Amino acid sequence: MASTFGVIMAGGSGTRFWPLSRASRPKQLLPLSGTDVSLLRETRRRIADLIPPERTLVVTSEALAEQTRHELPEVPPENVLAEPVGRNTAPCVGWAASVVARTAPDAVLAVLPADHHIGDERSFRSVLERAIAAAREGDMVTVGIRPTRPETGYGYVELGEEIEPSVHRARRFVEKPDELRAQQFLAAGRFLWNSGMFFFRADTLLSAVRQHLPGLGDALGKFDDAAKHGTELELVRATYASLPDISIDHGIMEKAGRVSVVPGDFGWSDVGSWTSAWELAARDDDDNALFGEVVAVDTHRSYVRAAKGKVVAVVGLDDVVVVDTEDALLVMPRARSQDVRAVVNALKSQKRSEHL
Amino acid sequence: MASTFGVIMAGGSGTRFWPLSRASRPKQLLPLSGTDVSLLRETRRRIADLIPPERTLVVTSEALAEQTRHELPEVPPENVLAEPVGRNTAPCVGWAASVVARTAPDAVLAVLPADHHIGDERSFRSVLERAIAAAREGDMVTVGIRPTRPETGYGYVELGEEIEPSVHRARRFVEKPDELRAQQFLAAGRFLWNSGMFFFRADTLLSAVRQHLPGLGDALGKFDDAAKHGTELELVRATYASLPDISIDHGIMEKAGRVSVVPGDFGWSDVGSWTSAWELAARDDDDNALFGEVVAVDTHRSYVRAAKGKVVAVVGLDDVVVVDTEDALLVMPRARSQDVRAVVNALKSQKRSEHL
Repeated sequence: MASTFGVIMAGGSGTRFWPLSRASRPKQLLPLSGTDVSLLRETRRRIADLIPPERTLVVTSEALAEQTRHELPEVPPENVLAEPVGRNTAPCVGWAASVVARTAPDAVLAVLPADHHIGDERSFRSVLERAIAAAREGDMVTVGIRPTRPETGYGYVELGEEIEPSVHRARRFVEKPDELRAQQFLAAGRFLWNSGMFFFRADTLLSAVRQHLPGLGDALGKFDDAAKHGTELELVRATYASLPDISIDHGIMEKAGRVSVVPGDFGWSDVGSWTSAWELAARDDDDNALFGEVVAVDTHRSYVRAAKGKVVAVVGLDDVVVVDTEDALLVMPRARSQDVRAVVNALKSQKRSEHL
Repeated sequence: MASTFGVIMAGGSGTRFWPLSRASRPKQLLPLSGTDVSLLRETRRRIADLIPPERTLVVTSEALAEQTRHELPEVPPENVLAEPVGRNTAPCVGWAASVVARTAPDAVLAVLPADHHIGDERSFRSVLERAIAAAREGDMVTVGIRPTRPETGYGYVELGEEIEPSVHRARRFVEKPDELRAQQFLAAGRFLWNSGMFFFRADTLLSAVRQHLPGLGDALGKFDDAAKHGTELELVRATYASLPDISIDHGIMEKAGRVSVVPGDFGWSDVGSWTSAWELAARDDDDNALFGEVVAVDTHRSYVRAAKGKVVAVVGLDDVVVVDTEDALLVMPRARSQDVRAVVNALKSQKRSEHL
């Protein structure tokens, strides 16, 4: 039976966890899921029973490659693919598929974002096995998360006919909806959140790339040629910026033929904000998530993180986020978590990039 | 005409401005009155037109003597009297009076707390002149502040007969009242806040000390003897802890005969909390008082102070205090300013004195 490879997409560089996350230390390298282990390391740990380290590829940016290798010491260093520039997920997955296909064209790829949280790992494991099995048959598979709220921040996938137990045809992908449509999706029951996890054989994916993104297909072919002469990395550095900047969802999945969905209901979170981090963290009797030397007096439902060597005192505040780091501090209501962006933009416009 | 000496009481060690104030850097050494100059320096500056530096004594603790001399470089170093232990204001003022009386027994002492703010300096100046004139005649003079609210945190002095324009006999001193009495005092109009500023001739004060606090009077006599032999500081170190731990209000003023009150209405503040600091500070269009590199987004009526080299972002909060220092951070609603004490006590009980 063909083997399975893990492809962990770890190139993220978000700002939603400023000031803990920085350009040089983005979300996937932070311990945000309630443990003291980074989201990236959690992602690798979750597949460890099914996929050995030497069959795990990690795609990240050049700037983060060293930290990424350091964070996953069991993964061979050459398995960490460093993109010279970010070009969304289609080039990222395409490159990883090419690398795998050189030795194992019929291997199944389990493509996983590095920065999500999964609460019920047993349930996740059976979804994983189901998705891998469907992919082995030649399907392009996505995992759809059963929605728990009318979320407008995610794309959706509509379930079609059930072709195997808990494996459906995907009827269509839907862009992020407005509030009303999100309500309708939730009520309808057959619209699932697009989790960003994908499963397909390397050869299936590459053939879909050649069909739907021929430019990318050509480029990947040249990577293969260069690899034979040991010059792949030079070629990647020289040409990666010219690859199409498109997601695998838009570029491939929405256009492909045999697309399946495996519904998942395993306590998934995309850890999208400080509020998510609070939800996932261990909390005390006052529902506070406290990290480091924190003195909380008459404070409830708050997320407070002290910098090393620092004491942080919070008095008489509910539902706040206080994140202190060596050179930057953020204080806001939890409900304003989305507005971290405003701060980061203000700092950018004031050219205080040393704090970003 | 006998000269006037300033006696600045600068031994305070409060915790209400934690984490900016520390045991090693108390309130009077901090710039809390809206300028970038310490309250101590402001106090000296306010009397500079009337009293030269060489006739200014400053009483502080041994631990703070060096910083105090550094903060007032124009004051001769020997004019900074260092108490080995704090013994409230009666010994402090008594010692300063003894030092002055050795060369100028009929000099008037203007005794001033180092950590207050005065908004209207012109008005303050005429109160000062009036009080000094009354003291020169042999009165013991206090300045009473016209109350603007039913404050329960201050002692009061009741006005008696007006003996000179804007100089009254003091009918009696009253301890901090409860809410109801404070309301009555405010309504009655003849109860003023006891400002802690006192004026008397050195010989008047010393004779009152001998009468009402004879133990202190004896000790001061011995200081005088030792001073003749150049051993005063040794004696002070050896015996200061045995002096009565009592305020000049309770120990002398309440018992003395010719006590006068000069009413004052010059924008006085005892700068008692972070809320006072906010009130006194320059504020922006959103009524925020911001110090250092602060990014305030949708934030109003708040006091935010960034540590050096640090950026502090506050989003979506009103009426908060955020004070960040190198090793400690405080976040609370302005209305909870009094509760800084709870934090300091918590740190004490956790033996984290490095943050105090």
